[in-house]
This record gives sequence, structure tokens and C-alpha cells, in this order.
Amino acid sequence: MADAYKANAVVGQSGGPTAVINASLVGVIEEAAKHPEIQKLYGAVHAVAGIVKEEFVDLGGLSSQTLELVASSPSSAIGTSRDKPDEAYCARIIEVFKKRNIRYFFYIGGNDSANTAHIVNTMADKANYDVRAFHIPKTVDNDLLVTDHCPGYGTAAKFVASALMGDDLDNRTLPGVKIDVIMGRHAGFLTAAAALGRQRDDDGPHLIYVPERPIPMDKFLAEVDAVYKKLGRCVIAVSEGIADGDGTTWAKKIVESGEVDAHGNIQLSGTGALADFLAAEIKSKLKIKRVRADTFGYLQRSFPGLQSAVDADEARRCGREAVRLAMKIDNGSVAMKRLGNGAGYGVELFRTELQNVAEKTKSMPDEFINAEGNNVTEAFVEYAGPLAGPLPKTEYLGNRPRV
Amino acid sequence: MADAYKANAVVGQSGGPTAVINASLVGVIEEAAKHPEIQKLYGAVHAVAGIVKEEFVDLGGLSSQTLELVASSPSSAIGTSRDKPDEAYCARIIEVFKKRNIRYFFYIGGNDSANTAHIVNTMADKANYDVRAFHIPKTVDNDLLVTDHCPGYGTAAKFVASALMGDDLDNRTLPGVKIDVIMGRHAGFLTAAAALGRQRDDDGPHLIYVPERPIPMDKFLAEVDAVYKKLGRCVIAVSEGIADGDGTTWAKKIVESGEVDAHGNIQLSGTGALADFLAAEIKSKLKIKRVRADTFGYLQRSFPGLQSAVDADEARRCGREAVRLAMKIDNGSVAMKRLGNGAGYGVELFRTELQNVAEKTKSMPDEFINAEGNNVTEAFVEYAGPLAGPLPKTEYLGNRPRV
Repeated sequence: MADAYKANAVVGQSGGPTAVINASLVGVIEEAAKHPEIQKLYGAVHAVAGIVKEEFVDLGGLSSQTLELVASSPSSAIGTSRDKPDEAYCARIIEVFKKRNIRYFFYIGGNDSANTAHIVNTMADKANYDVRAFHIPKTVDNDLLVTDHCPGYGTAAKFVASALMGDDLDNRTLPGVKIDVIMGRHAGFLTAAAALGRQRDDDGPHLIYVPERPIPMDKFLAEVDAVYKKLGRCVIAVSEGIADGDGTTWAKKIVESGEVDAHGNIQLSGTGALADFLAAEIKSKLKIKRVRADTFGYLQRSFPGLQSAVDADEARRCGREAVRLAMKIDNGSVAMKRLGNGAGYGVELFRTELQNVAEKTKSMPDEFINAEGNNVTEAFVEYAGPLAGPLPKTEYLGNRPRV
Repeated sequence: MADAYKANAVVGQSGGPTAVINASLVGVIEEAAKHPEIQKLYGAVHAVAGIVKEEFVDLGGLSSQTLELVASSPSSAIGTSRDKPDEAYCARIIEVFKKRNIRYFFYIGGNDSANTAHIVNTMADKANYDVRAFHIPKTVDNDLLVTDHCPGYGTAAKFVASALMGDDLDNRTLPGVKIDVIMGRHAGFLTAAAALGRQRDDDGPHLIYVPERPIPMDKFLAEVDAVYKKLGRCVIAVSEGIADGDGTTWAKKIVESGEVDAHGNIQLSGTGALADFLAAEIKSKLKIKRVRADTFGYLQRSFPGLQSAVDADEARRCGREAVRLAMKIDNGSVAMKRLGNGAGYGVELFRTELQNVAEKTKSMPDEFINAEGNNVTEAFVEYAGPLAGPLPKTEYLGNRPRV
């Protein structure tokens, strides 16, 4: 391996934003400033789209006050993009890199971003223009391979757990069935986080449905009915990617199925459609009067002032580590290894190959889902608890002995 | 006025919960403990429904640790109810009061609760059984008369302002049109709070629609289009009670109008229906590709760990004040008078007649809404800012000069 070039660097933020992707950006900025090999650090405005259009901001010389504000701000501070670069797109990227003497490429994102880093790195090699390319993990879905978990997940999990704590208390005071639809088309980690705030034996969510366990409507209804009959109420956390017994997502079925008409028709493209559909099913089939449904939407990934301290710290460390690695080696993706749980929780960072992360996703392991497929296990709570960090304690008095 | 009875008291929490209604409950509990006139303090489980069914918990002897946990917990800690007592219902309440030697009735809620307190007080008088009845204000809608503002509003406003801050940063990074539907069927105060977190000139929400200003669809679309053409994006805060030019709410029109079919049909009872309808209108009429809509739902009133300190403190003070008043006088509703703004913000509490608050609601005053009817004024920000309290600061770097 050749010595590190004395050259410019570029950093980009790709895909859906999170509440700590800016902490990773700041990690890159502050570590880059320590290495004289990195001359100028460009921020690619709107990710790869900014590179090919040469829309750059200078990330040098920012005050520590500004950097701390950036690190604590949700969403992507230099803009993101959902472009998936093909070879021609990457050729243009390398052309800009050559023109600007860019030899370091840091890309914060999910598995697509790891793939982009891999393609850029490989194509640059072929073009005899060395570019060191590093992927920094980010996703609220927590679905990247190799790493124990992903920066961005812990804070989103904290939001979802908090939301369900409040919603469960709301449901206690005005009993009925409450459905919360949570992000996660393929992986159930974020929906599963709904369990993290449970404090009392009868706290909700009482049922948790993840995409990893398809569920026929009749089983779903029977399970809701059983909880409702037992507790007089039922709080349900559902992944947006929940699927029917045949594996087809309910979202897709709502679009295709004639059944929908029986419940008043559903706007095909609407964000509230799945929640509204499930509420209508419960109302009409179980004859339960008070049924409410919320779809959490973007609040899950962008709510300010709610960072998990562990998540923000790890996101920043991952950004720093990518720069350190780039001083020593040609490419890689930063990953985390868990060192312990509970009070002994901690991680160490390590490098993995870009191809190990690129274009692949991880699902919830079986040990995190209960046998019935309608809740999470204690093993999941041990896994995700430290990532979300401490949650508020609550008190409910309505269960006290009657006088 | 006769001396205060040495007798028992009951407290109830009515209507939709808030994040600080328990602070008012704790205010009642801690003040009641100071007055030997109050022997036992009953908590009516599920409000008036708990009284008529004699479902009571004993609110004496709770540790200060428990009380602080209750005060910081969202939702109604002894359960709520949406029952609106008629005369027969109130007769049963008085029967229970007699049986249990209850002479003090504290009821935390909105204008209906003030009315219940008034009916109970009046009917007890007629039955020659004195009951001192006090209303403690509570509502996220902030729509009670007399008082400057309502406990519960400040924290809900903080949630909405925070949510819009994050959502605006999300919309910067993935530009398009974003609609957020916010609670408030008749009063726009909570939707207006969406403005409180704006920090930069081009921060969203760029348009704010409240029920006080009906808006025809073509005007709405033209305004969205103008912002989108200027900024390349548009964040919109909309009250669930937004009405068309003729004053009929859009929610009602969605149910009744044949127009709906053109956009894929909307589930009549669905919580996401208004958001989805507005998104579909923008997509189809303005040909904007990326249009997203979220309905905030119950998170607005029950998110834990996010109390506005001012709101929680005032809620507690209102609870205490009701008990103090009950030692001196027969009935009343606790109200707040604002003493100053900005750094000089503060309130003093005073008593108003129950009839002044009962069965009436307040709307946003004209001075809080801009001339175009699509945004709030600085006067509103001065009014609501101290109630929500400090919001996180954020930083965005994508606007920096290109290099």
C-alpha cells in the first residue's frame, strides 16, 4: 500500500436522513482537520448529485460551536440524494475528482452507499487514478450486514419507544385499540423498538408485528381480539412492511385487493393507508368501537433534541474512524463490534470490505422474535436497549386498589 | 360564605389527555395534603364515570418520588372519560358525594369539565348539600375563554414546533412538498405553533393554515405552487379543522365530495385521510413529484420526556390554586393572567366564574394570523414562544457558498 496522498477529500451524506448522520459528518470533519494529508475537505451538496454537478461547500474552518450544532441537528446538513450511480455516473464522479485533486471519498449512508464507494474505488483504480473510498454506516432500519448495529438506529429506536410509552398511557386513559405504523419495509428492528419502554406487566405495545413474520389477517384479528378481551384495550406496533400469510405486503394488497371497498376505499398512494386499513378491519370484523391508528412518518428519523447519547457518540466515532483508516488503506466500510451488554455496553470499531456491506441487508434474527411471531424477546431488549439509551420513567395510578 | 367543611374531596381528569394534566393532578394532591379541612382525597378513576360507579383510588400518602413521577408522566394518571353528564348523571354524582361525605370536587379538563363542575355545584345547592366545585383548565387546543392560555398547550406546542424543525431539515435534504396535519378542529393555536422553531429566513413551515381562515382549494394550490417555485420545496402545517372557502371543513368535503374519486378514493374514517387528500391534490394539480404527508396524531399530546418547564409548572400551580380557592369560596375556574413577555414572562392565577368558561371556546385572534391567512404573525410568536419554552438550535450547511 502506497503512502497516503497529499490531496483533497470529499464527504457526502446519502439516502434517507437520520438524527445522527450529522454526527458522522462532524466526525469526518474533525478528524480530517488532524491529518495534513487532507488539504481541503469538500462537502458534496446532495451527495453524489453534488459531485457530478460540482456543488461543493468548504467544510474547513468551521468553529467548534458550529460543529457541535451540526452534530446535534437532525437530517443531512449538506443535503442528501437518492441517486444510485451507474458506471457512467461514476465515470463523471472520477472526472470531477481528477479535476479537483480529490483522492479521498467518504460516503455516509446505507448499503447502496457502500456500493457506490466500491464502484468509485474500483473504477478509479482502473482509470489509474487512486481514490481511497470509505463507507460510514447510517440507517434507521438497522439493516446493514457485518456491523452489530447502525448509527441512526438508536435514536430512531428512542423516538419509537418514547412514542409508544406515551401512546400506551393515552390508551390506558381512553381505552380501545390503537395501531401505530412504524418505518421498516424489510427489517423489523425499528418496530421492535416499540417494546423498549415497557415498564409495567400490562404496558403496551401488546402486539408487535415485523416484516420478518408474515401474518394472515384472521390470525392478526384473533390476536387483537384476545388482548382486547383480556385487558379491555390493545396497543399494536406494526411495521409498514407487514405482510400477509402468503408473503405479500399488506400495503401491496391494499392497492390490489377488492376487499378494500368493503371498508370505504383507500387512497393508493397515501401514507396513512395501511394504518387506516388495519383500523377499518378491526372495527368491522371485531366490532370494537374505539379504534385509532397513527402512522409515525418522518418524525421517527428527524425529531430534534432527542438524540440517543450512545448513538450520537458512535456515529461520530464512525466518521472519525473512516478518516483514520483512509490514511492507512485503500478502502473499506466502518463497522462496530459489541464488547458487552448492560452496564458493560460498549463497541470497538473495525474495518470490513465494502463488498460485505454493499447491496445486502440484514433482517431481525429469529432469537429476537417470539415463537408466536407477535412480539419481541428479552434478547432483543438486551440488544437494543443500550442503543436507545435511558427512557423516561412514568407512573400510572389508575391500577391502584379501589377504596 | 360558610367556613370550609371538614370533609372528603374528589379529583378527576376529563377529556383528551395532555402531557401536563398529571402535573395539575399532583398540584391538587400536594395542596390538599396541606389543608386539614380535606380529610380523604379520592381520585375518580375515569373521571365522572368513576364517580357514578364508585371507582375511586386513595390519593393520600403517595411518596414525593411517586408524585414527581406522576407529574412528569403524560396522559391522565387516574384515567379519563368523554362522558358529558346530564342532570340524571349529576344527580347520581351527588348521591355518591353524600354517601362518601365528599364536599370538594376538583375537575381538570376543558370547557365541558367547567360545565360539569357548574352543574354539580348548582344541583348540590338545590339538594341542600353544599359541594365546592372547581375547574382546573386543561387542553392542547388552548381554546378556553378568560385564561391567557391553557395548561397542556405549551408542551403540545413544543412537540409541534420541534417536529416541524426536524421536518423542515428533512425537507431541505430531500426537497419536495411536505404536509403536516396537526390537531385542532376549531382553534388554530396548536397548528400555529409549527412556526415557533423557525431560525433561518427560509425555514419552514412556509405556509400555515388554521381553521379560523377558510381557504378554497385553488388558493391553497396557488400558494403551495408559489413557494415551491421560489424555494424548490414547501413545508405546510395544516389544522385538521381546515375549511374550504364556504366554511365547510375539508375533512367533511372529503367524505361528501365526488372529487375524491379522481384521486383514488379516501377511507372515510381514516386518520390519514385529510393529509393523503391534500397530497393527492398537490400531486395531481401541480405535477410535483415528491409530495409527502404526515398526520401527527396522538404523539402531539402524549409524548413523554418533552414537557415544557413553564407549562408543567403552571399546570401544577393551577391544581394547587383550585384547592386554595376551595378553602375560601364555593366554586370557580382557575385562570392565568400574563404579567409580561420575553424575559419578563410570568403569570398570576385568578378565579373566574365557571359559567365564563363552560361550553364556550376561543379562536385565534386576528392579530395572530397574517393578512393572507396563510401564516402567523410575530405577535403570535411572542405569545406562544414562552409557553413552549426553549427549542433546540439547529445548523444547516447546504446553504453555504459553493467552492
